[in-house]
Amino acid sequence: MVRAAVVNVTGYTGAELMRILSRHPEVKIVSATGRSDAGKRLRQVFPSLRDVDRDIVPAVEEDCDVVFLALPHHASAEAAPPFLQKGAKIIDLSADFRLRDLAVYEQWYGAHPLPALLAKAVFGLPELHRAEIETAQIIGNPGCYPTASILALAPALQAGVISPRVIIDAKSGISGAGRSLKLDSHFSEVDENVTAYGLDGHRHMPEIAQELTVAWERGGHPGAATLTFIPHLIPMTRGILATAYADLTADISVEQVRDIYTSFYADEPFVRVVETPPSTKQVWGSNYCFVYPLIDKRTNRLVVISVIDNLVKGAAGQAVQNMNLICGLPETMGLEALPYWP
Amino acid sequence: MVRAAVVNVTGYTGAELMRILSRHPEVKIVSATGRSDAGKRLRQVFPSLRDVDRDIVPAVEEDCDVVFLALPHHASAEAAPPFLQKGAKIIDLSADFRLRDLAVYEQWYGAHPLPALLAKAVFGLPELHRAEIETAQIIGNPGCYPTASILALAPALQAGVISPRVIIDAKSGISGAGRSLKLDSHFSEVDENVTAYGLDGHRHMPEIAQELTVAWERGGHPGAATLTFIPHLIPMTRGILATAYADLTADISVEQVRDIYTSFYADEPFVRVVETPPSTKQVWGSNYCFVYPLIDKRTNRLVVISVIDNLVKGAAGQAVQNMNLICGLPETMGLEALPYWP
Amino acid sequence: MVRAAVVNVTGYTGAELMRILSRHPEVKIVSATGRSDAGKRLRQVFPSLRDVDRDIVPAVEEDCDVVFLALPHHASAEAAPPFLQKGAKIIDLSADFRLRDLAVYEQWYGAHPLPALLAKAVFGLPELHRAEIETAQIIGNPGCYPTASILALAPALQAGVISPRVIIDAKSGISGAGRSLKLDSHFSEVDENVTAYGLDGHRHMPEIAQELTVAWERGGHPGAATLTFIPHLIPMTRGILATAYADLTADISVEQVRDIYTSFYADEPFVRVVETPPSTKQVWGSNYCFVYPLIDKRTNRLVVISVIDNLVKGAAGQAVQNMNLICGLPETMGLEALPYWP
Amino acid sequence: MVRAAVVNVTGYTGAELMRILSRHPEVKIVSATGRSDAGKRLRQVFPSLRDVDRDIVPAVEEDCDVVFLALPHHASAEAAPPFLQKGAKIIDLSADFRLRDLAVYEQWYGAHPLPALLAKAVFGLPELHRAEIETAQIIGNPGCYPTASILALAPALQAGVISPRVIIDAKSGISGAGRSLKLDSHFSEVDENVTAYGLDGHRHMPEIAQELTVAWERGGHPGAATLTFIPHLIPMTRGILATAYADLTADISVEQVRDIYTSFYADEPFVRVVETPPSTKQVWGSNYCFVYPLIDKRTNRLVVISVIDNLVKGAAGQAVQNMNLICGLPETMGLEALPYWP
Repeated sequence: MVRAAVVNVTGYTGAELMRILSRHPEVKIVSATGRSDAGKRLRQVFPSLRDVDRDIVPAVEEDCDVVFLALPHHASAEAAPPFLQKGAKIIDLSADFRLRDLAVYEQWYGAHPLPALLAKAVFGLPELHRAEIETAQIIGNPGCYPTASILALAPALQAGVISPRVIIDAKSGISGAGRSLKLDSHFSEVDENVTAYGLDGHRHMPEIAQELTVAWERGGHPGAATLTFIPHLIPMTRGILATAYADLTADISVEQVRDIYTSFYADEPFVRVVETPPSTKQVWGSNYCFVYPLIDKRTNRLVVISVIDNLVKGAAGQAVQNMNLICGLPETMGLEALPYWP
Repeated sequence: MVRAAVVNVTGYTGAELMRILSRHPEVKIVSATGRSDAGKRLRQVFPSLRDVDRDIVPAVEEDCDVVFLALPHHASAEAAPPFLQKGAKIIDLSADFRLRDLAVYEQWYGAHPLPALLAKAVFGLPELHRAEIETAQIIGNPGCYPTASILALAPALQAGVISPRVIIDAKSGISGAGRSLKLDSHFSEVDENVTAYGLDGHRHMPEIAQELTVAWERGGHPGAATLTFIPHLIPMTRGILATAYADLTADISVEQVRDIYTSFYADEPFVRVVETPPSTKQVWGSNYCFVYPLIDKRTNRLVVISVIDNLVKGAAGQAVQNMNLICGLPETMGLEALPYWP
Repeated sequence: MVRAAVVNVTGYTGAELMRILSRHPEVKIVSATGRSDAGKRLRQVFPSLRDVDRDIVPAVEEDCDVVFLALPHHASAEAAPPFLQKGAKIIDLSADFRLRDLAVYEQWYGAHPLPALLAKAVFGLPELHRAEIETAQIIGNPGCYPTASILALAPALQAGVISPRVIIDAKSGISGAGRSLKLDSHFSEVDENVTAYGLDGHRHMPEIAQELTVAWERGGHPGAATLTFIPHLIPMTRGILATAYADLTADISVEQVRDIYTSFYADEPFVRVVETPPSTKQVWGSNYCFVYPLIDKRTNRLVVISVIDNLVKGAAGQAVQNMNLICGLPETMGLEALPYWP
Repeated sequence: MVRAAVVNVTGYTGAELMRILSRHPEVKIVSATGRSDAGKRLRQVFPSLRDVDRDIVPAVEEDCDVVFLALPHHASAEAAPPFLQKGAKIIDLSADFRLRDLAVYEQWYGAHPLPALLAKAVFGLPELHRAEIETAQIIGNPGCYPTASILALAPALQAGVISPRVIIDAKSGISGAGRSLKLDSHFSEVDENVTAYGLDGHRHMPEIAQELTVAWERGGHPGAATLTFIPHLIPMTRGILATAYADLTADISVEQVRDIYTSFYADEPFVRVVETPPSTKQVWGSNYCFVYPLIDKRTNRLVVISVIDNLVKGAAGQAVQNMNLICGLPETMGLEALPYWP
């Protein structure tokens, strides 16, 4: 049994981790911590987790094999060292261990609390970094937008059939904005409403650029990927749909594009190249990513639609997938739940 | 392994059965049938069930142990005999085997196709009829409103602390109206809208009256329960919240009422008497029913709030719970999924 | 022209007042005040009101004929005296001037800041108090739940055909909870969710009881009306549907009941006794109340469904209707907008 | 008074026309026709329009000055001649009179019933064609997506600061899909869901291309505008947000871009160049279009966000705006309603 701890269980990612881990056949949750809610029963914060039946504690006291950090950035990195010293693996759901270039991190998040740890960290997207994840000490679990965006474009970039100057127009449910109180999450303000946001630059952009460049470079192509990234909030709770646009640079048919995608994801347990345009609800509550590439012949552009559940494949589910990999468990264990429809 | 068939898989109940049964460790699905969609892949009708990866067939050809009938009333009863003759157990999700009194059935649904079968049928609410379910040949799986309503009031009626003249005001998500196309399920008509319906008498009313009377009689009380039942459609997909009102006939405290409820449900795997007012989302995607009784002291009335997921405990989940019981499997097998939040 | 001021324009009721008053042909808005937002342009707080094009000021400096107070209770009463001294009429949207019995007020809201003013106040429901409103100095504008509830039951109570021990089960959109930030208004918490609340007693209950008793007494009946009032929050922004239940005490047909209602509301500009069950969206954005009485013959109960837009007839629209009355303007002026569908 | 008729009043556009025209001070509605609903009262189809209080008739018998055709394409053109012969002006809400190039029309819609009429038709976007509209006999009222898209990009194209190879990613509420019954409008299928559609080419694309080219050519630029247009359905009833992307071809600041936009729309009664990113709800229920241009400096792209209410500025409101223009009435008459918030 893997002894796991969840640090800061009281946000949506923490709750989702508890939901999944509580039913994982090879996990024993040794601790679930909170800050202001420490001392309460978990059910007082999340009645849906009533039967998990445990206390929220102020700190992890027990030894554990894996620690999930569901803290804000900076706090996350600062919390890591004691666990690492005791030999635990860290799966961090903040941005602290996602960016390989310290200068880029500092541009978007300010000074990094522990830059020395970056060398031990791997970007936790199994579809691009599976082998490194298996032996990593620290996983920087990807953001929700990056997961959907990178999976939409990595095959075409690696194959070199598109220009690396891409556009990603993403639509997210409100849960991506977290559980804290702000007018942008107030029901009456966001219901029956759609808005673009983060227009001065969203923090997920550099993470996407980094990994699109990884795919581009793996194909042996010179230079780096750049992107315009515009996220939108739409009136639903869960789900991200990313629509990616790129100019085709090869004379290529949609069948050939589909071959590139199906080959790239042939052995992936959670990515499906689908035959009809996907919608977010088709993957609701599951760890799947559905991807659908098409060609706009009039303008010779590749358009790719991808969908995920932002709290599962975009956060907690992917974190458990990473845990399975670093612990040598079957990659899909605990993540077999099919999507709910409707 | 239980060999199971799902007849008419193409509605929401059918899809939900497939979602649950596909991950049930002791079930092998031998057939999933459809009518107009026979010949298609299941994924063409429900992309969310892509990985179930099977055909929709026109009829069940294989031998099986349990058949789930997800057909409309009349068609359901008519489909049952061949399966019964081969020794299969029937779990029927229509109304055909829920009402014990043929005259009542005929008043609400017209002539019964096979009234002789009624004697073999048991009302499939385990909390009231567990022992009979275990040895039944036919289960009349309860409707969604009845499940929420009966669980809200059975303890108080059996205990005899309320008048049996009750009121149930129920609020349901739109999925309860099924997948067929009608203006009442059109997004633009029901979004941002709430309406009362079935005001001339909803078909679930007699089913609720029957089972509330069962509870009333078990307490040794004379007469029958009667109710005013007003259902409402609210703009969400899943979930039922029932608010039940009854005059208290005993001088009793809220603590005593809670004791009656917690005793009644002490050994139930899926019913919880909760400490704070429940909401439907607290049980979303799970087989739980949360029940919350309170007393309005000013008017000396009992008010009970109950919540379920109408497609799980109110339909497919309860059907699988019944299957577990008639097949001698652990009652919660395949139904361990915790609710999703948010 | 009526010179009007809106005190505390930055909540939903304030915004709705500005939307209506800005297009009222006989109103000149002289001031719109805010507290923390004073100094901003109105459009910075409500971009939808961009073309109203005015500043939010800290206090009303100008003389005015009518002042709308959209403040919390206590603050509202405290703000009234200076305006009254200058001869302005007050339309108060808080609870401070709704309850005639000081003891009841104090039980629910604590000590009243200025109890002497209560004698000058009239409950601003034109359908029950039109004549008094026309000559009042202070209007206690009714709450949203009371408006829907009282209009549902007043005709039957005055006619004496029901027991005065009633039940009201109300369903409200989230905007009724205001613009302040709380978990109960967080999109991800309330979307796809329904919950009962205020179960220890909702503050609108005494206001409903008071006015139902007015109707009861007007019919010459002894005693007072009592009620069980259970409000629910449902996932939509605007609208209240109230379902009222009462035992019939007369042998009466549904046609006779409808006659009572149509007679009662025969001359009302905003109340309609409709022929089919109403839904909240049928009155969305308008000052209408649709009312639909029916009889449950099995249990001999009267059930009445009523619907309003909680921010219009339930707040700002009714306030403008009251302003028209006290200023001698046509009652419907500025309130002619038809409901939006869909 | 303008004598107006609405042909086919029973869809959402027809209902919205009735809502607006019924309150227009210079309009007398002489007829409202339906097909299968002819013979009913309007209130039976739209209870929200109860007080309009008129019959749905099978055909327009009266003389009229303006006829609004809210029919499907082909049926619309076929209905026009009798009205034209009697001297009425036609405002057509179908696609039949939007496309100037017959070959393009036929490619997307099949043979045109009356191609000779195209020469009399003007594309009814006042911001681009006001002078022609004022003297036209037939107005091809723009589609909802084209209205939002063209207003987003026309200023930059006319100014020649962007490449004419653009991308428009649009998000629409479900009401844009009309009132007919289909699985794509079924609440349970589209709630909590977002999907891209029309991926083989949406019929609004050529209309957008035509008018973007008009703007491009007005600036004296050679060639034509081309676009990739990807519409998405999101879970709300009303509203379109268009996100437009184009490569900048000039070395230009965001202030200069804003100057181009504010100059272009300086005298427009319904278009506002806003200071903060707009959301659809900011214009809900009104005839406004809010436009927000920005520059993504990293990639040197112009991004423009525009929002409208698809049933008002995107359909019925714009039709009334056109009616005002061809009838010599003030352009904003009957369209003064401010947006609702929330």
